[in-house]
Amino acid sequence: MDMLMRFFQRLKSIPSALAWFIDDVLEGVFRHIPGRLGPFHIGFRLRSWYWRRKCHSFGDNVLIYENVRLYFPQNISIGSNISITDDCIISAHSDPGTGEITLGDDIFIGPGTYIYSSNHDYTTENIKKNPQYTAAPVVLEGNNWIAAKSGILAGVTVGSGSVAAMGAIIVSDVPKNTLVAGVPAKMVKTIEKISNG
Amino acid sequence: MDMLMRFFQRLKSIPSALAWFIDDVLEGVFRHIPGRLGPFHIGFRLRSWYWRRKCHSFGDNVLIYENVRLYFPQNISIGSNISITDDCIISAHSDPGTGEITLGDDIFIGPGTYIYSSNHDYTTENIKKNPQYTAAPVVLEGNNWIAAKSGILAGVTVGSGSVAAMGAIIVSDVPKNTLVAGVPAKMVKTIEKISNG
Amino acid sequence: MDMLMRFFQRLKSIPSALAWFIDDVLEGVFRHIPGRLGPFHIGFRLRSWYWRRKCHSFGDNVLIYENVRLYFPQNISIGSNISITDDCIISAHSDPGTGEITLGDDIFIGPGTYIYSSNHDYTTENIKKNPQYTAAPVVLEGNNWIAAKSGILAGVTVGSGSVAAMGAIIVSDVPKNTLVAGVPAKMVKTIEKISNG
Repeated sequence: MDMLMRFFQRLKSIPSALAWFIDDVLEGVFRHIPGRLGPFHIGFRLRSWYWRRKCHSFGDNVLIYENVRLYFPQNISIGSNISITDDCIISAHSDPGTGEITLGDDIFIGPGTYIYSSNHDYTTENIKKNPQYTAAPVVLEGNNWIAAKSGILAGVTVGSGSVAAMGAIIVSDVPKNTLVAGVPAKMVKTIEKISNG
Repeated sequence: MDMLMRFFQRLKSIPSALAWFIDDVLEGVFRHIPGRLGPFHIGFRLRSWYWRRKCHSFGDNVLIYENVRLYFPQNISIGSNISITDDCIISAHSDPGTGEITLGDDIFIGPGTYIYSSNHDYTTENIKKNPQYTAAPVVLEGNNWIAAKSGILAGVTVGSGSVAAMGAIIVSDVPKNTLVAGVPAKMVKTIEKISNG
Repeated sequence: MDMLMRFFQRLKSIPSALAWFIDDVLEGVFRHIPGRLGPFHIGFRLRSWYWRRKCHSFGDNVLIYENVRLYFPQNISIGSNISITDDCIISAHSDPGTGEITLGDDIFIGPGTYIYSSNHDYTTENIKKNPQYTAAPVVLEGNNWIAAKSGILAGVTVGSGSVAAMGAIIVSDVPKNTLVAGVPAKMVKTIEKISNG
């Protein structure tokens, strides 16, 4: 009787389950198509089409390279003129109104970079059986280069014009026009910007 | 004559070669299926089925995410209630009885984490033409969170309740309930666990 | 009229566009075939065939593992007896005569290692709208082990016999027979090589 009940509940949920399944297959297939595939850049186009519907906002000229994963995209805002290159993870918090991730305009994100706006709360007695999360927004103000293999953690604002060197793990705010490097990332110098027309 | 001999030897080995080939194809295909694919979590199920047969032991509720690679799984023991997330490598030593990797219960392993229980012996004259290896077991006691992009090297024991921050490369033992961070990872603090029911 | 012009120009470029497309599909498909696939190591063979035609030079016994990306391969020279393992990126500069990457003989490159011979010039006013690059050659002299998750930046020469520990980001030259580690990588010790036959 109980089993029959569950069987009917499953039957009722088939259309939405099918939609879910198809959506996941699209994401998984699109994710692995080379970005510049052929002269028409099919990978970039398919992924822009896919993620534009999912993200909170999504600007123009956004190139999402291969194997980029956006988790909880409804909390991710992406400006214009952005490259998010291979193997990146951008993982917002699950709940709206907290832990949003905002990328301004004109940003290069190097391959293998991870941006998280939530963390496990590791003070809980059993971190896996009873997981708790803490969250705080992440903002990249724009005109940034986040070099390969970097990490940006919850609560961080990266000021406009700033740059992270390869492998930097950014755990605190970065002022404008600043180069940071290291684990955890520390300020290396202020960048003197030279106008190039 | 010699060629004929080799041809017949190849013929004899076709069934095992075919089994090897099919096994590799399964692994390669299963590895790239999104874990939560559809409401039935097809990726997680297929990979659990595949790796349960290969690993030395394999508990309940083990979620193997996309593109996780387990090398020499016969020397890898996995407890219950474990998440091994995207792009991780867990590479045990090839020989049984040395260089096992043991994961206890209740563990989160963040994406891009690599755990190795063997190393090249870099004191040999030519590291590639005549490779030699050193090996030592790795143990994660349980109730751990190994954050993204971490590394754990041969011989390390991570005590129960301990946590590695993003990008930590752990080269020596971590006591219980300890937060470590950095390259190489150093102790940041003892974690005060707060019971949450 | 203008549209018609463009339409005819597109028609004329179809054969080269098709060749480009097919080349990209081959690269994308070959890249994801497990290296040791079956007893004939199909992945290694297909990728050797593919990249040998593309690279400036390409020695014998070069094993290219899964998801290795070589950018601007016409500026990449690869010696003999090399393993470039999973998820590596080797990215040369686009222009010939500057920013070449040269790998000598007998080299292990661990998974997730990135080698770049060009950088964004971050002193330009807008790093993304008007990108400028700096470039300098990278040389690995040979008999090296670059452990997992390492990075090697433009202008670096790694001396023969030298080793980078897991997660090292190498930003300056490494003398011969030297172990380096850390972010940025620093010298740990000189390696005493022991002949083993």
